[in-house]
This record gives sequence, structure tokens and C-alpha cells, in this order.
Amino acid sequence: MAPTRTASKPHATLQDPLDYLPCSPIAEYRKHQLIYRQNEPSTNIYLILEGKIKVSRLAESGRQILVNIYQTDEFFGESALLHLSRRPEVATALENTKLMSWTASEIEELVRRQPRLSLAMAQMLGRRTTEFVRRIESFSTDTVARRLARYLIRLSERMGDPEEDGSVRMLPFTHELLSEDIGTTREIVTQYMNHFRKQGYLQYSRKGIVLHRDAFHNWLRTASAKPAKFST
Amino acid sequence: MAPTRTASKPHATLQDPLDYLPCSPIAEYRKHQLIYRQNEPSTNIYLILEGKIKVSRLAESGRQILVNIYQTDEFFGESALLHLSRRPEVATALENTKLMSWTASEIEELVRRQPRLSLAMAQMLGRRTTEFVRRIESFSTDTVARRLARYLIRLSERMGDPEEDGSVRMLPFTHELLSEDIGTTREIVTQYMNHFRKQGYLQYSRKGIVLHRDAFHNWLRTASAKPAKFST
Repeated sequence: MAPTRTASKPHATLQDPLDYLPCSPIAEYRKHQLIYRQNEPSTNIYLILEGKIKVSRLAESGRQILVNIYQTDEFFGESALLHLSRRPEVATALENTKLMSWTASEIEELVRRQPRLSLAMAQMLGRRTTEFVRRIESFSTDTVARRLARYLIRLSERMGDPEEDGSVRMLPFTHELLSEDIGTTREIVTQYMNHFRKQGYLQYSRKGIVLHRDAFHNWLRTASAKPAKFST
Repeated sequence: MAPTRTASKPHATLQDPLDYLPCSPIAEYRKHQLIYRQNEPSTNIYLILEGKIKVSRLAESGRQILVNIYQTDEFFGESALLHLSRRPEVATALENTKLMSWTASEIEELVRRQPRLSLAMAQMLGRRTTEFVRRIESFSTDTVARRLARYLIRLSERMGDPEEDGSVRMLPFTHELLSEDIGTTREIVTQYMNHFRKQGYLQYSRKGIVLHRDAFHNWLRTASAKPAKFST
């Protein structure tokens, strides 16, 4: 039996790992609860049935680097598949979350019976690779303000709910978390979020972030890549 | 028959795609020759039998972003596996190169008969994901000088030949290419390469780059993450 699905399937020509995975016991985690620590032995691969997970890495400098946020129907913990002896990152629940998990050996045994499972996993990792290249592109060519704008748009595409007026509503991701994705401080994110709010590109409160994506896209198109006012 | 191997195998517990792939006709490319263009239809996945390939992306801003350099026994062009209609990047030969290639449908047919092939591909893409996270970490926390030092070390680990005195010799990668990895201009790379040469961390000429890796590691350990002299 396949796990219950809540999100839409990816493009039809792509394989979907969920079609090939048997159920495992469901583990529940509360908001902020740790799933695994950095440097812990890599054992399991996880599938999110419900909720959101933050995967990040503590850099040598002591700064938190966001690897990604994963949501329902997405996998994380693939370092187990690589037989890395230690987790290169930490995973925590961003909200109350339900997970299934399999050991790397279970996955490898499943692959023997369901060859398309690992093709599906390869495709999923390939898509993530493409996203990382886009992020490196943004680090290479964009100011902090543009990186923040692009990250908000990316988040809204993956995790936003469209409103009637064409805007998109998201969770109240903290300025701290946004700063961990784009490689700056929380204070600088707050400064730009205020600026974007004044320009009418977004609203935010403890309830959520509402993004006016078209206005943001226009600003990205018309503003220079390195505007004097925002160079950092 | 498996293709001829020239490099050592990855860690024993990992699968190796080469163990599961049949031979395909060999195509030869001269140095600087184009393998595929950005926005061209994504059709084939390539394996390098001999030589080196540069995969990069033309950003909106017009700047070239290095995705990666691949060498003997490595794959590239995995966007074909994702059924992306257009290549998100361009691939060119960095030296005279021999390639085998398979269409995505051929790979998918092979996977049915050799389930471990796609597990091997998933592991390879997983390792690349880990490298991208390290690169984003360096963009988030390092100055341009430190990014350059880390990239030279990473290149020397993947593609360097150890010399008797403990240094490592690499191809004469151009300052232009180095700048495309770390997201700066060729002029700034030249400025830091001169500085590193004066400090005795490396030598370079048209014949190659010789890296004194231990000295570089020491500098990375002792220099502050954001030294005033090198902040950019």
C-alpha cells in the first residue's frame, strides 16, 4: 500500500518514488523537535507524510547554512544512501510532522525488486542538483536584496497558497531562516523585508508572509543586478 | 563489456554505474569543442572515457557560472534523465576528450535489467548534492580570497597529481574558469593568484598550477573568515 498522497504528482514522464515504497511505521515529531544531529551516524532515509522539515548545516564559522526545507511527499536524509558514516547536516521539524523511514539496506533491497524506485530517486536528486545550480547562480550574480527576492519567490512557488487577488500566502518563515538560505545576517534580512513591505511587494506578520509575486518579478527585471543602493 | 577504466573505484560500499553500462560508440571531441548548447533539447547522458569537460550556465546577467568540471569515469548531461525539454547548461571539452553516450530511454530500459545502475546514479547525484552544499556554504561564509583557496584545494583533491615535495600539480586552469566557479571577475582572481604566489602558497604558469596545500590549509585555519584586507 502506498502512503496517503496530499500533493500533486510531478510531471507524468518522471518516476515517483512513492509508487514503489512500502509503508513503514509512522513517527511523529513536534515543532522544533530534532530528527537527527550533524555528525550522527547516517542510517535512515525519511519521507514526509505531513509537515515540514528544515535541513541545515553548521559551517566552520559557526554560521547556520540552510540546505533546504522539505514538505509533504518529499524525501530527506539521502546521505544514508551514500553510506556516509556521519550526517553532514542537522534535520529539525519546522511544524508538527509525520515521517516514514527506511534504512539504506532496506532501500537497496527494495531497488532489487522495484528497479524504478532508484530511477525515481536519481531523478529527485537530479532536480535538487538543478535547484542548487540556480542558487549558486544567484550567489554569483545577485545582490543580497535580489537573492532574498528570488528565495521568497522560490519558496512561494514550492510552498505558497494562491489568494484571490493574485498574491501568494506562505508560512511565517522567520527572518533568521531566510538569512540562512541567502548567506547574510538576520538584521540585514529584516532591513530588506521592511523595504520590500514599504514598496508594496509583500506583507508579513506572525501569521504568514503574503507575496505579490508579479511586483517582485517586475522589480527583478527592471532593477539592475548590482544597484548602488543595495550593494552589499 | 565494461568501458576501459583509468581511475580508481569509489568507496567499496557504493555502486559504480560503470559496472552496469554496456558499451556505446565512442565520440571524440577536440579541446574547446561544443558537446551541447544551453537550451538545446536534453537527449543524452554522457560518460567520459578520456579527457575533461566543462559544464557551465549563462546567467540572466550574461555571466558564465561554472556548474562543474568532469573527468574520466564521470557522467554529465543528467538533465536528460529528468526529461527537461531544454538543457539548462552548456558542455564543452576542456581538452581532447572521448565520450560514450546513451539516450534517457536507453538508460531507463537498462535500469529494468540492471536495477543497481540507477542506485549508482542516485548515489553519484547525491554526492554532487553534498558538494553543492559545501559550495553554498563557502559563498555564505567566505570572502572571495577564501572561496578561491577552497576551490583550488577542491580541484587539487579531485584532479591533482601529487609531487615529491608534498605539493600537487594540476592543469593550467585559467583565471577566467576559476572566476566562474567562485562568482567574481577574472581580474580579481588574477589579483589573488598573484598574492597567493607571493605568499608561497602556489606557483602557476602556462604549464600548470602547483599548489602547496598544507600552507593553504594553514592559512584557511588561521586567517579570519572576513579579513579586512580581503573583504569584497
